[in-house]
Amino acid sequence: MPRKINIAGTLVCTLAFLAGAADCRAEQNDPLPSWNDGPVKSAILDFVQRVTTEGGSEFVPVAERIATFDNDGCLWSEQPIYFQLAFALDRVKALAPMHPEWRRKQPFKAVLEGDLKSVMAGGEHALLELIMATHAGNTTEEFTQIVNAWLATAKHPKTGRPYTDMVFQPMLELLAFLRANGFQTYIVSGGGIEFMRPWAERVYGIPPQQVIGSSIKTKFELRDGKPVLVRLPEINFIDDKAGKPIGINQHIGRRPIAAFGNSDGDLQMLQWTAAGEGPRFCLYVHHTDAEREWAYDRESHIGKLDKGLDEARKRGWTVVDMKNDWKVIYPFQR
Amino acid sequence: MPRKINIAGTLVCTLAFLAGAADCRAEQNDPLPSWNDGPVKSAILDFVQRVTTEGGSEFVPVAERIATFDNDGCLWSEQPIYFQLAFALDRVKALAPMHPEWRRKQPFKAVLEGDLKSVMAGGEHALLELIMATHAGNTTEEFTQIVNAWLATAKHPKTGRPYTDMVFQPMLELLAFLRANGFQTYIVSGGGIEFMRPWAERVYGIPPQQVIGSSIKTKFELRDGKPVLVRLPEINFIDDKAGKPIGINQHIGRRPIAAFGNSDGDLQMLQWTAAGEGPRFCLYVHHTDAEREWAYDRESHIGKLDKGLDEARKRGWTVVDMKNDWKVIYPFQR
Repeated sequence: MPRKINIAGTLVCTLAFLAGAADCRAEQNDPLPSWNDGPVKSAILDFVQRVTTEGGSEFVPVAERIATFDNDGCLWSEQPIYFQLAFALDRVKALAPMHPEWRRKQPFKAVLEGDLKSVMAGGEHALLELIMATHAGNTTEEFTQIVNAWLATAKHPKTGRPYTDMVFQPMLELLAFLRANGFQTYIVSGGGIEFMRPWAERVYGIPPQQVIGSSIKTKFELRDGKPVLVRLPEINFIDDKAGKPIGINQHIGRRPIAAFGNSDGDLQMLQWTAAGEGPRFCLYVHHTDAEREWAYDRESHIGKLDKGLDEARKRGWTVVDMKNDWKVIYPFQR
Repeated sequence: MPRKINIAGTLVCTLAFLAGAADCRAEQNDPLPSWNDGPVKSAILDFVQRVTTEGGSEFVPVAERIATFDNDGCLWSEQPIYFQLAFALDRVKALAPMHPEWRRKQPFKAVLEGDLKSVMAGGEHALLELIMATHAGNTTEEFTQIVNAWLATAKHPKTGRPYTDMVFQPMLELLAFLRANGFQTYIVSGGGIEFMRPWAERVYGIPPQQVIGSSIKTKFELRDGKPVLVRLPEINFIDDKAGKPIGINQHIGRRPIAAFGNSDGDLQMLQWTAAGEGPRFCLYVHHTDAEREWAYDRESHIGKLDKGLDEARKRGWTVVDMKNDWKVIYPFQR
């Protein structure tokens, strides 16, 4: 596949060169054009080269080329609040007319009054209540439509753009590059599996069966003879921290050879990946760009990267410095 | 892909024809050589033709060509007891020296005395206790090795053959035929996901990420700094009956367009599959061959097919009559 791409690129370049375009060959042959040259980009290219070189000592068969990616903060932004939480808050507002009691009941009251600080002060319990009230009670098909309808209209408070515009261009290139080299790319996220699946294929090229996430329980029912899966207000699985290797084992049943994250919530996934035999690649995206995105790590409430950063340094994992390693952050900045 | 196979087949046939071989063309061009000609085989070929014909009114894009298969009684035999139960019984015997108390404690006592009738009289609770005692307490990697070691030596009581020899040759051909036509083939079984994964790829060509089954919970631990997943004596998910559509939704996130089963435990999977829009294919394997395999349906304790048979007839689903539709049952009979 990469060979094919390169040949196509070379052809285009030859034509462009004849027409007087400079630097085309380099750009066309670069599978990661939004990544600045340097040790991080080299480490990625080198790893893929090693595991795909037939006859090489580190060759990995296609079936075992599994790469797992966190989503929030790794494939798209996660500030000023997780995008799925923005969805839940908008959903509380949309459902409020059917729940007059919410005007007097926390955490809903705070949401309806736009008082995010009080919502957050309610801690995990408040968030869980919001998720259950906004994510359950419908069928799987209805929920997919609700997510799609929200994404079609909701705008990020800082950029004013649809949330699905705020994916990281360098990571899109990395996903495509890995797939072109026979990798299966999976999302392994603390976010909701059914929240990500409706758009992951269109936006990331990742089909639903390669999306792993947190979930609530569902119940099979026949409604007028038609089978439906009803979403219940009960946690099924939390795909975060130690849950990530568990989710990977449940869904894939094979250890990844490459894993990509950005927070301490991804640490166990990276440890699990690194502990396998043969060539391994672990990468942390470090949010260092306060101007083009956000800068945060050890002290952040969202996407805290503290233990993970220490372990990455200790073990020699690759760390992306977003400010210096990435030419652009979002596709719309190209 | 199928075109390629046909061309290759034609070439081989032409050479064989020149050398005097009869009937070669027909056999080479037949993707399901172990299926007798008739309405069942025609229904399969016709469905695949319709969903793969580009520009046709029933064309289904490759990404949506999902086919799900039950395992016990659908892809391999399940008599006189589920093969995984044979594994559990052998495992009780292997572990007995470390559990002297089992000599006085049911259901272990009955297993050690070879008294299967008493084991079965203990009902679901006894079976669950056996599964927990024999399937938990090790790491995921250890369990895989235990399953592989058992399969390498255990023999079926009737055929004297390894259990993995007792897969259905016609179903192997069907799996390969569907994959050659762009389908992803999944196992969706009440059996243990970690019991099937070690051999499903070798035997069925189905990789671990396309195996869905029942599971126990696991726990992530660092042992001397090395991460492991420890198998706990606690049910995580029962992938049977109404659990099958739930498992399909959890793992695949997309509705199958074709589903294959053999018992009432598969009914909800077939209903869920049939209820989608566009072309659908539902098939029951009916065990009708007392001589070459086993004959059982409405009254059987294992693989009971009662409601499912009625619904198949009502809805016009395809029903395989093993005795009349299959030329051979097992690969070793060819």
